[in-house]
Amino acid sequence: MHTASICTIGDEILIGQINDTNSGEIARALNKIGIRVVYMVSLRDDEKEIESGLSHCMDLSDIVIVTGGLGPTSDDKTKKVVADMFSMPLTAYHPGQLEVINNICRKRGVELSDLNRDQALVPLGCKVLINREGTAPGMIFEKKSAPDSPPVSIVCLLPGVPYEMRALLEQLTEYIRICYPIRDIIHKTILTYGIAESRLSEILSDWEKTLNPSLHLAYLPAPSSGVKLRISVYGEERDTAINIVSEAVNQLKEILQESIYGEDDDTLESVISKLLTSKSKTLSVAESCTGGRISSRITSLPGSSSFFKGSVVAYANSVKTDVLKIDEMIIEKYGAVSKECAVSMAEAVKEMLGSDYSIAVTGIAGPSGGTADKPVGTVWIAVSGINGTVAHKFIFTGKREQVIERSASQALNCLRLFINHQQL
Amino acid sequence: MHTASICTIGDEILIGQINDTNSGEIARALNKIGIRVVYMVSLRDDEKEIESGLSHCMDLSDIVIVTGGLGPTSDDKTKKVVADMFSMPLTAYHPGQLEVINNICRKRGVELSDLNRDQALVPLGCKVLINREGTAPGMIFEKKSAPDSPPVSIVCLLPGVPYEMRALLEQLTEYIRICYPIRDIIHKTILTYGIAESRLSEILSDWEKTLNPSLHLAYLPAPSSGVKLRISVYGEERDTAINIVSEAVNQLKEILQESIYGEDDDTLESVISKLLTSKSKTLSVAESCTGGRISSRITSLPGSSSFFKGSVVAYANSVKTDVLKIDEMIIEKYGAVSKECAVSMAEAVKEMLGSDYSIAVTGIAGPSGGTADKPVGTVWIAVSGINGTVAHKFIFTGKREQVIERSASQALNCLRLFINHQQL
Repeated sequence: MHTASICTIGDEILIGQINDTNSGEIARALNKIGIRVVYMVSLRDDEKEIESGLSHCMDLSDIVIVTGGLGPTSDDKTKKVVADMFSMPLTAYHPGQLEVINNICRKRGVELSDLNRDQALVPLGCKVLINREGTAPGMIFEKKSAPDSPPVSIVCLLPGVPYEMRALLEQLTEYIRICYPIRDIIHKTILTYGIAESRLSEILSDWEKTLNPSLHLAYLPAPSSGVKLRISVYGEERDTAINIVSEAVNQLKEILQESIYGEDDDTLESVISKLLTSKSKTLSVAESCTGGRISSRITSLPGSSSFFKGSVVAYANSVKTDVLKIDEMIIEKYGAVSKECAVSMAEAVKEMLGSDYSIAVTGIAGPSGGTADKPVGTVWIAVSGINGTVAHKFIFTGKREQVIERSASQALNCLRLFINHQQL
Repeated sequence: MHTASICTIGDEILIGQINDTNSGEIARALNKIGIRVVYMVSLRDDEKEIESGLSHCMDLSDIVIVTGGLGPTSDDKTKKVVADMFSMPLTAYHPGQLEVINNICRKRGVELSDLNRDQALVPLGCKVLINREGTAPGMIFEKKSAPDSPPVSIVCLLPGVPYEMRALLEQLTEYIRICYPIRDIIHKTILTYGIAESRLSEILSDWEKTLNPSLHLAYLPAPSSGVKLRISVYGEERDTAINIVSEAVNQLKEILQESIYGEDDDTLESVISKLLTSKSKTLSVAESCTGGRISSRITSLPGSSSFFKGSVVAYANSVKTDVLKIDEMIIEKYGAVSKECAVSMAEAVKEMLGSDYSIAVTGIAGPSGGTADKPVGTVWIAVSGINGTVAHKFIFTGKREQVIERSASQALNCLRLFINHQQL
């Protein structure tokens, strides 16, 4: 099995100003193609330390993936150090990357400066991955024992900005997969919502005992996506592996039923998007404590304009009464955080924006605003459709950010179940 | 200046199942007491790799801080490896930690198992930090050249669970501070918006040449917060360091003027929150292509209800005309992505929600919807206040997510500049 080290470069990591998320993302991508990550390291913006750190990584593993330190400014040193290590002169401008840089400058209405142009300078002999999201290209350096043999050692440089790194990661893994073809690892992720991790583990404990020994199950909880169940099969022939996975998935679906909302890269919002567009139905949202989070998650999806009408963020009570026309008596009698207010908000926004379905959320995100009756984390969620409106109360734990994120996810899940039930 | 390495141990990090946040937290704590972190590494649960990884860290730095691998199960190997490295037999139970473990078992109503009891086993001769949040104590190993001299080298083990690690970190830094009384490191971050990193570097290049040699400047770009400039001073007396930083900050303010929006932990939204609450003014937002992102960022701030009234996410054109009452003629004549539409949206939402200020954004986030005239990334932003409304056109590069995030940030920045100018 081939091995990799991941190396992140930048003082900002070593002084704790940012947490490195690139390494985890790269590790997941490498695992998928059967590369085992054996070392992760973060280094300062110092030429000597980068050189000795990378040499150490090359001693420990076949592949070294480096992120960061590719920017145009004087504190970015990675490209120069690696070019020196591989004795490749930094003399050639890469025409494809230069074109991207030119386009970016033109779009921003700034002139192409020397610093920007030099972002397209690449060491002679390296392979280039064109970065269409930014100015710094990815670069691959190979050490070979003979011209036609697979590389003995590979060093890859990727930009440190996470979305730029992400955009090049797929090209890079494709390249590695061709250099080092491997037996299959099959991963499948089943997405659940509404059951806590510990309870899920109890429900599945008997089933887990019956699993094929080459199958590995992992629980991955996250506030915005429920608990993900990752099924991995290692070291089997591809067809066998696929069968083992699909049998396990079918059993899970039988056990967990509608707690499962999707697979792999699905999200609550993408599942709702598919449900609504397949039925040509539309959605609107009235948000109080979630403050626009639900709308923002929905509109992050390309094509959401085909089903999403819009929303009213009724943060102040005056917006609830003046814009959504909620009866002041309801707020006076039951409070803004109440079943009655949530139901009225859902019906009002559906009517006002002319949608088929609507969601409304009203609650107390904290840190202040809680009472004995309605502690911080109390949230009412209403969903409304063609045949009426239902509302549910939730009490979420955690800080403000978690309460907002969990409320948004729960609201999307309520809508999913509501649409599914209305079908029956 | 004394140096440290931080080492996290656990397969879950190397396969990318969790992102390591302990290292960043430890790095911040060490920086505060003047220890420079030079190396961060993550290692698998493998005795040989742990031993060679820790030896490497000890070669690179005076202090090595290790988290993880202290649990009771068979995959936790850190304590044994380090005890062997320091030739300290694992024979003695630490009475204070054993008492904590007993109490935890009693609270949970479980019997004290051998596995749990062995959590209190500590290598003979190490210093123990009692862990009151869990079963694994912290341990400090010293290498000394003479009994009364300060240690030549220190290795510290901390539990990997973040809140247990955190509970011991203060004791540990106190211990290190006594071993190595030190000079200060001062960091200051200056936040800028509206100037690209490469342009900023050109503007500052002459100034950079005049900087005190103990001052280090780093550029950190991010789509949601502009470019951050981090100033660090190492190895000077505290008062001198503070003077060097404050002089540099004053010079930066003179050069960059109102492109600077804040310092350190400020964000565009927190700066706007301070501006508006200090003037007792309120805000509302009309969002089209940002789909709720601006509202969501504002309401992520605790206390935002004191100035934020709410918003209308007018995603569909029908919501622009029916809810915000934008004249249909405007959309027909100029299009929804136009100066006229942005201005009308800003004025309508301000009027409708009864706020002092408003922001409106309308644009094409992509991937589809662009035309030759109005390519993907074209965004109009209007801000409206007591004395009128202004609008600006931007063309953002990047994918949908970046266009949305940059539009939201730019809109917040437009409002900041607008409020500041209205003051004059």
